[in-house]
Amino acid sequence: MKHTIAVLVENKFGVLARISGLFSARGFNISSLAVGETQDPSVSRMTIVVDTSEARILEQIIKQLRKLIDTISVVDLTKKDFVERELALIKVNYEKSIQKKVKAILNKHKNTTRLIREARNEAIIEICATSEEVAVFVSNLSPYGIRELMRTGKVAIA
Amino acid sequence: MKHTIAVLVENKFGVLARISGLFSARGFNISSLAVGETQDPSVSRMTIVVDTSEARILEQIIKQLRKLIDTISVVDLTKKDFVERELALIKVNYEKSIQKKVKAILNKHKNTTRLIREARNEAIIEICATSEEVAVFVSNLSPYGIRELMRTGKVAIA
Repeated sequence: MKHTIAVLVENKFGVLARISGLFSARGFNISSLAVGETQDPSVSRMTIVVDTSEARILEQIIKQLRKLIDTISVVDLTKKDFVERELALIKVNYEKSIQKKVKAILNKHKNTTRLIREARNEAIIEICATSEEVAVFVSNLSPYGIRELMRTGKVAIA
Repeated sequence: MKHTIAVLVENKFGVLARISGLFSARGFNISSLAVGETQDPSVSRMTIVVDTSEARILEQIIKQLRKLIDTISVVDLTKKDFVERELALIKVNYEKSIQKKVKAILNKHKNTTRLIREARNEAIIEICATSEEVAVFVSNLSPYGIRELMRTGKVAIA
């Protein structure tokens, strides 16, 4: 099961290494992690997604996270009502012969996607949607040849 | 100066801790970091932003990154032509008296923003733009009361 955890921390060097170290010490792989500034530049917010069936161990990791000196708060959003979004940048094959097909897919997802750049048989597309929608869009595009894909990892707000 | 570094790594536990540890061991603070899956689920891509004037030390860190067994490639995008985007979720005060003003700001940024949810005098807004545009939007909104702000950190594609 995927768990989405929001962590507020002091924006200091070493915090990210300590937090990711807590997960890896228990053999947990972080599926995605996004960390950026908040309205207060001295505070950062992380959204961490882990996929695990070991809820008890995750509970222990959360307790340890709360004990770290630079941690301000930890919330397991999985148990709450939250809004989630993920951003992906995709470089896709855009040769003349398939442009119409790629455009048709973009049109199907027109509320969440944008064609940012076209050049030399390639296009760069942006999608900003739920992680599930991003996955559907990527699998629709993939028969046409995805050259690069960069996902931010999910961010979520309660 | 801000440096944007793209790192492709094997998607294994412990990789994130090792990479963030390399930066903190040198006293470098990571301004933002986004890590997510690529088109190949066994490979993750990180976009790391660091703000530093010590280019020589950063060069050393990049060399060390390349030596890590789970690293596939490291590119300092700062030296290249790249497209960047950042996603932010913003929970803003949305009382009746200021709804018009908030809507006017949204309208100014209508190509990059969306009102996702309205409830109990609050609204959740999504913006997907360059880091610079996100910063401008946030500063335009802030007089009306930002309650929560979550940025993904920049992602970039060459």
